[in-house]
Amino acid sequence: MSILEEFQPLFHPTSVALVGASADPAKFGYHCLQSLLKGDFKGSIYPVNPSLKEVCGLKAYPSVKDIPDKVDLAIIIVATALVPQVLTECGEKGIKGVVLITAGFKEREESKGEEAQREIAAIANRYGIKVIGPNTHGMANLHANLDASFTPEFSLVKKGGVSLLSQSGGFCHLIAWLAIPENLPFSKIVGLGNRCNVDFADLLDYLEQDPDTKVVTLYIEGTDDARRLVQKARQVSRKKPMLALKSGVSSAKDQASQFHTGSLAGSYEINRAALRQAGIVMVDSSQEFVDAAKALLLCPLPRGKGVAIITGQAGPGILATDCCEPNGLTLARFSPRTQSRLCELLPPLSIRTNPVDMGPAWFDWKTCIKVVEAVLEDENVDALVLCAVYASLNEVLLRELCPLLKGLHQGKPVIVCFPSPPTAWEAERRGIESYGVPVYSTPERAVKALSALVRRQEIVAAHGQEHSC
Amino acid sequence: MSILEEFQPLFHPTSVALVGASADPAKFGYHCLQSLLKGDFKGSIYPVNPSLKEVCGLKAYPSVKDIPDKVDLAIIIVATALVPQVLTECGEKGIKGVVLITAGFKEREESKGEEAQREIAAIANRYGIKVIGPNTHGMANLHANLDASFTPEFSLVKKGGVSLLSQSGGFCHLIAWLAIPENLPFSKIVGLGNRCNVDFADLLDYLEQDPDTKVVTLYIEGTDDARRLVQKARQVSRKKPMLALKSGVSSAKDQASQFHTGSLAGSYEINRAALRQAGIVMVDSSQEFVDAAKALLLCPLPRGKGVAIITGQAGPGILATDCCEPNGLTLARFSPRTQSRLCELLPPLSIRTNPVDMGPAWFDWKTCIKVVEAVLEDENVDALVLCAVYASLNEVLLRELCPLLKGLHQGKPVIVCFPSPPTAWEAERRGIESYGVPVYSTPERAVKALSALVRRQEIVAAHGQEHSC
Repeated sequence: MSILEEFQPLFHPTSVALVGASADPAKFGYHCLQSLLKGDFKGSIYPVNPSLKEVCGLKAYPSVKDIPDKVDLAIIIVATALVPQVLTECGEKGIKGVVLITAGFKEREESKGEEAQREIAAIANRYGIKVIGPNTHGMANLHANLDASFTPEFSLVKKGGVSLLSQSGGFCHLIAWLAIPENLPFSKIVGLGNRCNVDFADLLDYLEQDPDTKVVTLYIEGTDDARRLVQKARQVSRKKPMLALKSGVSSAKDQASQFHTGSLAGSYEINRAALRQAGIVMVDSSQEFVDAAKALLLCPLPRGKGVAIITGQAGPGILATDCCEPNGLTLARFSPRTQSRLCELLPPLSIRTNPVDMGPAWFDWKTCIKVVEAVLEDENVDALVLCAVYASLNEVLLRELCPLLKGLHQGKPVIVCFPSPPTAWEAERRGIESYGVPVYSTPERAVKALSALVRRQEIVAAHGQEHSC
Repeated sequence: MSILEEFQPLFHPTSVALVGASADPAKFGYHCLQSLLKGDFKGSIYPVNPSLKEVCGLKAYPSVKDIPDKVDLAIIIVATALVPQVLTECGEKGIKGVVLITAGFKEREESKGEEAQREIAAIANRYGIKVIGPNTHGMANLHANLDASFTPEFSLVKKGGVSLLSQSGGFCHLIAWLAIPENLPFSKIVGLGNRCNVDFADLLDYLEQDPDTKVVTLYIEGTDDARRLVQKARQVSRKKPMLALKSGVSSAKDQASQFHTGSLAGSYEINRAALRQAGIVMVDSSQEFVDAAKALLLCPLPRGKGVAIITGQAGPGILATDCCEPNGLTLARFSPRTQSRLCELLPPLSIRTNPVDMGPAWFDWKTCIKVVEAVLEDENVDALVLCAVYASLNEVLLRELCPLLKGLHQGKPVIVCFPSPPTAWEAERRGIESYGVPVYSTPERAVKALSALVRRQEIVAAHGQEHSC
């Protein structure tokens, strides 16, 4: 069985049982059902609850074994003590995928928790069930209209090429809520929980093959099998861009992440340096995570780290410039040809060196486009950051300029910083992004996103050298 | 004349002339008029344009001297060559405040520009006119419903206690667009432009006295009079929190900021260290600028740098914890009393040390509040960061919890990180902020905002020591 087939019941089920379904909005089982419904899941949904005949208009079954149909995936949210029995019934029913939301296993402070987790892992392995969890918020596969979590709002996230494997459900929520206004599209969003028989490495194998996943992103606290994770990352990063945030920098919180999903953050030598060497672009904050994922998804890679900045207003251009060096980028020195072209195109009130400050010429979109073209043609320029702030005065400009950015980039990444009041320029932002040009709302975020592309390029180059050895 | 009276015509005019008013949306003069109208300015508005009888329904005058009424403020957006004449007419009319949007002065690459600026400064000084500009987008005083800029959207910014003096109009736009969704309220937003006779130091004198300004924020590229700026900052920071972003870190862009508003960023020894020593909280990015301003506006100051973190979900709590040390904060060690109180309140599945991970107890708001109280009572705790991510499951919790945060903080700053999908929790966020508890959408931003409070506290303490010497 191929890896895609192995994970088919989890990520592309044709029917889902929800064990612990509830009509009470105070219960997880209610919200899980809402997730399936609001996510617009196209397959069959079977609520399971021995004390109910019907839940939210759907017929309920006493046990998975009573469901008259084949079931691919079971979402389980029952009392901890009931999990072994429910899992056994799932196995007997032939269910091969389980999302086990119930907590109270390895993350407990007593050894009993670890024992309980070993027990359920044994049951799952006996029946060949792949389990996401326990102690997870769940997961979503937007390409299958499947929100198998207790949060229906995951279906608000746009469908697209980024997949996230996270050791924290809270992080999945955080990233999803940042992603929605950023228009960052996701495929799989997986809360790994305590990882009883599906760990990072297993899902990396899957995501490497998954045609819907273009960028693989990870949130890591700690892992029991660092070596395998690093090995897999080295393999996957040859094929797809990988991005990660590793938490657990401070010693004070080691205790927190230890108990969180039952693993020690600082131990097992899993650290940022090892992950970076494995070919993962490492970021420092949740906002950077979202921003870098967008750039990695949309942009071609730069050939080097020489950046050109073109700005409509000096201030934001200076902020972008300041941000280059600390993020490993250099300001490109324009060739004499570009320099003289800019002097032709721009009046003396503009700054015609890098960073290019358009000055009053900013309001003439035909000149803007020529300046963008001239700069992108320069062989010293590996990438372009284009900055402008919204003012009603340049609204028309942007509407004319945006469609022209399509196909302009000549294989070089173009990153745009267009801060604007809420809802202004929304259509334009979406339009620009559809041409492979990500848009950010501060100069610093734009430059940091670009630096992720440069780091990805360095990883690709290093892989190439390994090949040629 | 007091400093407040001196700046009265600029910031609280009863009548405004717009010289260069236009009905053509391609012209600055059109957008300036829209700004006055959409800003809902309550005084008289007099468009001035010799070739028009009427502009947008308002009677137009050939010159300011033809206006039958007293005029406090003139906004000037005419051709560069006409400025000396218009300014002279303003002087003769007795106008004492001018916003000079027209560019083409000291920022020009030729010495002619510098000469032209000296000329207009001389005219302004002769008539006792205070000039904002030239080469500015304008300014706004939201407390006077006055948007004297070419961007009507400044009136979308909430009215409140932060004032901004900026060497870049682009920065004013950037910060305003970031401030709107953050609900950060402003009083004055001033683009200083080339500063022909009103510089940072002059406006600092004014803002020190201005009762509407609670927090003074600056964006600085370079200045001709660093010593005076530092001196004033030292004085104002004794009275009001000051915050600044100093750009011009990288040498490559010195050229850009030199031409931008006619001053060299790197020169005159104006640097971050000098500004910090003068009592200004320095930040590194535009987002931090907005976030720190919000915290400085809303929160009491911590007595020290010991932070408690309480989180509903482990992941975001770990990210917040990681962020403390690099930002000069330490995780508070709970007293034995707090420790035992937490053990009473929270079940074993929670983390009952700092950071406190509520675990399943998160869903019981009565317990949440008791935990918050117990932690804030701890004398080792100087500030609290409260983290939670939105899920439909905890919507009710938050609605119950938020009003209880009012008056809970016991004089200690409480910072909240509540990421949520767009529009969810909006009312709750606004509600919490009205109790002096700022809300941010990532753990990293929350912690960095708190670090600005700690730095402000250190400045206040240093001032106190100076006094006692």
